[in-house]
Amino acid sequence: MTVQIPVVEQVLSANDQIALQNRSVFDRYGIAVVNFMASPGAGKTSLVLRSIEGLRGRRRIGVIEGDLASRIDADRVAAAGAPAVQINTGGGCHLDAPQVADALAGLPLAELDLLLIENVGNLVCPTNFLLGEHRRVLVASVPEGDDKPLKYPGSFVTMDAVVLNKIDLLPFVDFDVAAFERGVRAVNQRAPIFLLSCRTGEGLEPWLEWLAAA
Amino acid sequence: MTVQIPVVEQVLSANDQIALQNRSVFDRYGIAVVNFMASPGAGKTSLVLRSIEGLRGRRRIGVIEGDLASRIDADRVAAAGAPAVQINTGGGCHLDAPQVADALAGLPLAELDLLLIENVGNLVCPTNFLLGEHRRVLVASVPEGDDKPLKYPGSFVTMDAVVLNKIDLLPFVDFDVAAFERGVRAVNQRAPIFLLSCRTGEGLEPWLEWLAAA
Repeated sequence: MTVQIPVVEQVLSANDQIALQNRSVFDRYGIAVVNFMASPGAGKTSLVLRSIEGLRGRRRIGVIEGDLASRIDADRVAAAGAPAVQINTGGGCHLDAPQVADALAGLPLAELDLLLIENVGNLVCPTNFLLGEHRRVLVASVPEGDDKPLKYPGSFVTMDAVVLNKIDLLPFVDFDVAAFERGVRAVNQRAPIFLLSCRTGEGLEPWLEWLAAA
Repeated sequence: MTVQIPVVEQVLSANDQIALQNRSVFDRYGIAVVNFMASPGAGKTSLVLRSIEGLRGRRRIGVIEGDLASRIDADRVAAAGAPAVQINTGGGCHLDAPQVADALAGLPLAELDLLLIENVGNLVCPTNFLLGEHRRVLVASVPEGDDKPLKYPGSFVTMDAVVLNKIDLLPFVDFDVAAFERGVRAVNQRAPIFLLSCRTGEGLEPWLEWLAAA
């Protein structure tokens, strides 16, 4: 008689196992971690910079910058006075948990309240990879068009907040804010939607309050 | 004595083999095929619509629309009077050659001079997958910022043309056209760069001439 022992299916991917480890590091240090996702040029870095500025003296912020190439963004963040680590993915279209785990060695974790992770500019792939974050934010922008929630529904489903940036450009493009909001609500009923402009500063206060409480 | 026969490394990926088959179909019908790639919302569909309109009576154009979800784009193209097939990739972040091969069954190939393929909105992944196209076009847009060639260099390397769309927004954002052009030239010395606005129609003529000759 033989006993068949079923092979238990691996519940967590290798990425998600390391994401859980990252999460336990964040929790040990009491750091709230927010993963920013968006198309290229939607304004993730501008929102990170506005957030550093707006929460100065209230939250000690560190930043992980993800890009295929260059350290333009990390340099901008460092110039704003926040500790920043740049991850270059080479050709990689998203950040993954092991990259974030490596980046943590370059940050003064004991001195941070809040860690902002700016993912690679890509509305599709980053949403499929947990990094260990507590909150996920999607940054959309007015010039991209109000149909993005309908065309990329999977990118909006798991978000804890949606930012619509560049509202200063509303007078110059065809964009129906109500249609955008309906599109978000079709797949995500719960995430607050923040309408703001990183360029002019309009609408930043409610976003900063949400981020401070993240 | 044993003779060792080396396993010859497969030179072409499965995708590229089918891309070559697509190319031979295109060539048999005498159709020039152009693959449009861009971030979400850069204006690929608007450029396709402007191209259909601008080349009406000169080129018989068909369109393949790639999106994660919805058939918004194919409906817009069909309304403009061009035969269009929508591919929905589900979660897929790029078109691949087998999807295009399948889509060809839905197009009147014998009646076309030019086939425009609008890839999934994604500045990273689509560039790595040949579809059988003769020409590759990257559509960038002013609100995305002038640093995109530096941050996504791999996306510009293999392009036969670069379009900078939404130049009507130049007065309202910080965008250095010369810096953008330098960024493109750092990785691609040969692709013409077309500055235009699909919204106002400014700058379309040189683009249409290039496309007509593709």
